[in-house]
Amino acid sequence: MNYEATFINTECPVARASAILGDKWALMLVRDAFDGVTRFSDFQKSTLAAKNILTSRLKKLVDEDIFALRPASDGSAYQQYVLTEKGRALFPLIVCLRQWGEENLFHPGETHSILVDNETDAPVAKIVVRNHQGEIIGPERSRRKRVIK
Amino acid sequence: MNYEATFINTECPVARASAILGDKWALMLVRDAFDGVTRFSDFQKSTLAAKNILTSRLKKLVDEDIFALRPASDGSAYQQYVLTEKGRALFPLIVCLRQWGEENLFHPGETHSILVDNETDAPVAKIVVRNHQGEIIGPERSRRKRVIK
Repeated sequence: MNYEATFINTECPVARASAILGDKWALMLVRDAFDGVTRFSDFQKSTLAAKNILTSRLKKLVDEDIFALRPASDGSAYQQYVLTEKGRALFPLIVCLRQWGEENLFHPGETHSILVDNETDAPVAKIVVRNHQGEIIGPERSRRKRVIK
Repeated sequence: MNYEATFINTECPVARASAILGDKWALMLVRDAFDGVTRFSDFQKSTLAAKNILTSRLKKLVDEDIFALRPASDGSAYQQYVLTEKGRALFPLIVCLRQWGEENLFHPGETHSILVDNETDAPVAKIVVRNHQGEIIGPERSRRKRVIK
């Protein structure tokens, strides 16, 4: 097995992204950050993760420039973990996970959360893949193509 | 730590989805399936995963009804792993991973793949979160709300 070749030295952006985000704890922490969580103790309350797991995942997310460490906004000694621009760009991904979960992982009548627009209180639209002209396309109508950025 | 409470008996669809998809190998296998890979040996060639890892991940994806096992279409003895409807619904998620990777994990000049529409050869549109009326919204303009399905 060649871990590097599979996930890092690859031309596939899905593989490189998966090396960072293919981890359930990392996904939970990014989710919590979008919900306004910033402190270690609050991440711990929300995820119920063991301290060593939380420490290693937060460190990795900082190393990957998804979270940045900032002094607490209230002047206290606690540091805050806040999403960087790169981290904020994960919003559609977290919404995709949410919508797939909503539709596929709950029984009828089971309570769950949905994501609503603050201004209209209506659920956000279902995320779809569209082509350049705005038409919805499925996997059969797309293919990978090599490019140099 | 209460693993069940965090990922399974939770009202959060992101958590339930992450329990299944927060695994880099699972994401690689779903990616490969969208690229037309169906056989164990081809998943192995593509991911370079060790056999035991591949076996456990494929089994989990079948157990979760993301992959289904089918007799080979060419009449050979090999079985095929094909995406179910639930698995195909992961297309936007894989495209989100891809686009985030494309934009954030490659240096200028580094070769990578992009996803293009077969009919126009143009890159698929950037995935965004929209509200019910089609306006693009960011994380600040949305919030979680509890519902019963």
